Amino acid sequence: MKNICFEHIKIDDGFWKVKQDMVKNSTLYAVYDRFMDTHRFDALSCTWKEGEPDMPHIFWDSDVAKWIEGASYLLMEKRDERIEAIIDDAVDKIVSNSDENGYFNSHFLVTEKDKRFKIRSNHELYCAGHLMEAAVAYNKATGKDKFLKAMCRFADYIDKVFRKEKSAEFITPGHPEIELALVRLYDATGEKRYLELSKYFIDEHGMGKDDACSSYDFANNLYNQDEMPLRERSTAEGHAVRALYLYCGMADIAARYNDKELLEACKRVFEDMVNKKMYISGGLGSTYLGETFTVPYHLPNRTAYAETCAAIAMALFCKRMQMIDVNSKYADAAERVIYNGFLSGVSMDGKSFFYENPLEIDTKFNDVNNSTNTKERFPITQRVEVFECSCCPPNIVRFIPSIADLMYSFDDETVYVHQYINSQTEYDNIHISQTTAYPADGKIKITCSAPQKQIALRIPSWCSDFKINADYTVKNGYAYIAINGSREIELELNMPVVCVKANKRVHENAGRIAVMRGPVLYCAEGVDNGEDLAGIAVDISSEFKQEENDFILPSLSVCAYREKDSDMLYSKAGDDYEKFTLKLIPYYAFANRGETEMVVWFLRK
Amino acid sequence: MKNICFEHIKIDDGFWKVKQDMVKNSTLYAVYDRFMDTHRFDALSCTWKEGEPDMPHIFWDSDVAKWIEGASYLLMEKRDERIEAIIDDAVDKIVSNSDENGYFNSHFLVTEKDKRFKIRSNHELYCAGHLMEAAVAYNKATGKDKFLKAMCRFADYIDKVFRKEKSAEFITPGHPEIELALVRLYDATGEKRYLELSKYFIDEHGMGKDDACSSYDFANNLYNQDEMPLRERSTAEGHAVRALYLYCGMADIAARYNDKELLEACKRVFEDMVNKKMYISGGLGSTYLGETFTVPYHLPNRTAYAETCAAIAMALFCKRMQMIDVNSKYADAAERVIYNGFLSGVSMDGKSFFYENPLEIDTKFNDVNNSTNTKERFPITQRVEVFECSCCPPNIVRFIPSIADLMYSFDDETVYVHQYINSQTEYDNIHISQTTAYPADGKIKITCSAPQKQIALRIPSWCSDFKINADYTVKNGYAYIAINGSREIELELNMPVVCVKANKRVHENAGRIAVMRGPVLYCAEGVDNGEDLAGIAVDISSEFKQEENDFILPSLSVCAYREKDSDMLYSKAGDDYEKFTLKLIPYYAFANRGETEMVVWFLRK
Repeated sequence: MKNICFEHIKIDDGFWKVKQDMVKNSTLYAVYDRFMDTHRFDALSCTWKEGEPDMPHIFWDSDVAKWIEGASYLLMEKRDERIEAIIDDAVDKIVSNSDENGYFNSHFLVTEKDKRFKIRSNHELYCAGHLMEAAVAYNKATGKDKFLKAMCRFADYIDKVFRKEKSAEFITPGHPEIELALVRLYDATGEKRYLELSKYFIDEHGMGKDDACSSYDFANNLYNQDEMPLRERSTAEGHAVRALYLYCGMADIAARYNDKELLEACKRVFEDMVNKKMYISGGLGSTYLGETFTVPYHLPNRTAYAETCAAIAMALFCKRMQMIDVNSKYADAAERVIYNGFLSGVSMDGKSFFYENPLEIDTKFNDVNNSTNTKERFPITQRVEVFECSCCPPNIVRFIPSIADLMYSFDDETVYVHQYINSQTEYDNIHISQTTAYPADGKIKITCSAPQKQIALRIPSWCSDFKINADYTVKNGYAYIAINGSREIELELNMPVVCVKANKRVHENAGRIAVMRGPVLYCAEGVDNGEDLAGIAVDISSEFKQEENDFILPSLSVCAYREKDSDMLYSKAGDDYEKFTLKLIPYYAFANRGETEMVVWFLRK
Repeated sequence: MKNICFEHIKIDDGFWKVKQDMVKNSTLYAVYDRFMDTHRFDALSCTWKEGEPDMPHIFWDSDVAKWIEGASYLLMEKRDERIEAIIDDAVDKIVSNSDENGYFNSHFLVTEKDKRFKIRSNHELYCAGHLMEAAVAYNKATGKDKFLKAMCRFADYIDKVFRKEKSAEFITPGHPEIELALVRLYDATGEKRYLELSKYFIDEHGMGKDDACSSYDFANNLYNQDEMPLRERSTAEGHAVRALYLYCGMADIAARYNDKELLEACKRVFEDMVNKKMYISGGLGSTYLGETFTVPYHLPNRTAYAETCAAIAMALFCKRMQMIDVNSKYADAAERVIYNGFLSGVSMDGKSFFYENPLEIDTKFNDVNNSTNTKERFPITQRVEVFECSCCPPNIVRFIPSIADLMYSFDDETVYVHQYINSQTEYDNIHISQTTAYPADGKIKITCSAPQKQIALRIPSWCSDFKINADYTVKNGYAYIAINGSREIELELNMPVVCVKANKRVHENAGRIAVMRGPVLYCAEGVDNGEDLAGIAVDISSEFKQEENDFILPSLSVCAYREKDSDMLYSKAGDDYEKFTLKLIPYYAFANRGETEMVVWFLRK
């Protein structure tokens, strides 16, 4: 099965148009300005000297690369001289400072020069992978091939050192990314050696040969994705972003080599994530300690790590899985991610970012350790414009412009519609138009022309009641409809507000419900609802009303209950509740109005 | 007002008789054996040499001293040659190794010899204080005065160094205890200089003069009780045990000097604790970070520190306060402590101990950090026989035999009955007998003879319905009854099972209730109720049944509700509860049947 790439899909109205415009007009420049302030672009010049401030960091190249990749996606829609000048300048620096082997890394070329390919945990191949992805994107956007050629040389050098000569001091990268990047380089160039190198890394990871290699003191085999060969995996472990980039590579190799064993491992880790380790927001990674997955059903809300990059990587993994295993669960998971735990990573104005995306903010108890200099750690409560570790902001710059990548795949018989986004698509002889306000409502008008194919529409798992103005049969979560060349279809997904509970094994959410409408999770903030949100109780049979706001999708209001105030610390429990009108906003929009309490999970009345 | 000391009170049946027998027959020897194993008694010989194992620790003297104090209390009831031989041997070592000034410390005499009185945080005066308390107790129990004389010499030396010459490198102790010990030494000897030295420490603490002195890196002014002069305090801050020992000293000085300003400070910190910082178990200290108080209403159940020593120190503070401020709230707080968060510190067999007393054990999520060597910290889930920092076990050895100290105080007009314990009391011309199964039930028959006095019976704050077969007037929580020389009174405290809620500001307990009967808190354990206790819901109007068990007080059973099992991580909330019979045991008895889940706070159905 093939994907229809986002460059063939024009999102011309609705929810994601707003977000794509935000990236184009705001986020792209906001991130660029911060990267200039912090000398991330300057670092490409490789002029830094020992003793100077702002030593190029081991992962700075990846930050710049992701920005170039995102900028390139915008250039695909419309060329822009200023942006191209920035990228051309960066490419010139990368190419002119690459060594005779094609090697480039703005950290290892100017400091730790003797450490090249010696420290597994130091993001060297991760940076290389992102540079390759950027080069592919820039080539596709502009036709310029200087960057792409340089990255092919770099890839050839990596192939030589790692696969042919095995002269590096580690075998597989500490931070995966190059695996999927090499597949992309293969797709762009047709050079099979890149695919083979990716497969080599996938084959070798977890074989126990890298044990002696350097890593962080706090890290163990699970953190490093070393616990067992990838084909034997059945659970998602370790650093969440590293795990998910690796799973993307696994899925790519499974698809390209028709590797059933690898595919089954991909399916198992997917199931483990969505059934036992995923926040209702789609967030992944339950702890800041190592930024890792933890144990099944351990989903603390206040200290959720749920990194924005993990959300993006999960969407990228789902995109790959929906092409090789026809089941709506992959697009369901991607949808949960993109409307919630991914999108919460960026402010409404597109200029500030969360690295961690908690599901609860309890401002009163964020500075509890008044008697010690050592403090309990909680995520920040406000998005910030710049992070020292700034992987998430440029990842947003590349992900939102390419969001339509998640929408369609096709094989000889069927065009699959995975996501509902108002858009026009033309790819070969496939023409699809979606007219919809989704997810503001569940009505989607789809016009599809695709000779010799049927169309398959995903029925989202959140939807228990839908209508299609055509005959259909449902299989694996998709409604298959004959289109006989061309057809206009009306799909109506009934989208009431639903109170959702978590599995009883999630002790954190015992007795609590979350409010969703379609794929969109809601939350309550202190700025709307006062203090002590933890005690708010909602009757699950309540009627919710929609209200306009500044957050694209409407707010909800509902009659709810909260405990009356008291001076007693402990007292006899009675019927001490008062009614009030609870206001809910989309979760992705939390923390846009100053520091305030926030909860996702409410008590049940 | 005066206290009636426990040595005049014979507990001859009932709840505390069981616990006193436990200490006499089990805990005393269990702690002694561990102290022998760990060379705590041997250390008194001061023969340790650099390079040998088991270097005497800075607080080992206090461990031994508390054991001697507790053993002495048992000797008051019945002399015992073997115990006296142990103590005499220890005393001989202490006396023979005291230096020419009377100084004794088994750590600073053999290692860090040049550090005497130089490191404020190193428990030197804390150890001295406990040795003084032990000496007073042993003298009272046996009439032998060798230990007491030695400790008077030591106190005189401390007076010289700290108060007269001011030659120590700190002014007030990092770990309070000597303040209350000096008052006790004054009470035992009549030597006013000990009282004056105590007052000196109380006057000087928090005056900002000790800022430059050494302390732990993690500690700040609040930890060290240095934030402001003691008379200005209005909140309880810092290391909970240190704070509470200091408050005991403050109350002692307030009483002895009729110092109203100091008394008001004591009242304010008491109110801050019981209204904003006390667990329903009576536990104090919300975090292991510095073992400190945190901010108001921050009462996490699973990570509660609630040290056993803090519970004991709170009871000691309440005992002092009930003598200087007639209000039942002090005895109410002491009662909450002794039946719950104190008593949970020792196993039913008296041989193993909790240092921390959490209000929730969630075994499934105690080892969540499988991907990192760095782990989130949770309290231990099983009592242990020996701690490296073993302050709590010998504190239990001295506290339970002297529990009756909390029962009575009197002034010229009134005998106050603060606690209800089956016992016989004879002190001067006051004779009181209590016949009761309390707290198994609320019926107490009190026979009191006390010429020219009335009797005042505490009406516990948990009791909303009581009967007395006599005329009475209630004031400040006490029912005052004329006894005309001598009288038999029947008090009946109605003691139903009550569902208690926490203040809405305690977010941790939002929507939850705890079950109490009289002063006794109940909990549910996994061993009785299966897994996932966090999701158990109790209807607050339910009828509870009592059942026999091995834990002195009965278990309770009640019809309760829990979520049905499901494979879905998230699903639409419905009426998915099943009924079952919930079994509750007294909180103090948790963790006596192997590692298992435990909760105190239940959802409300």
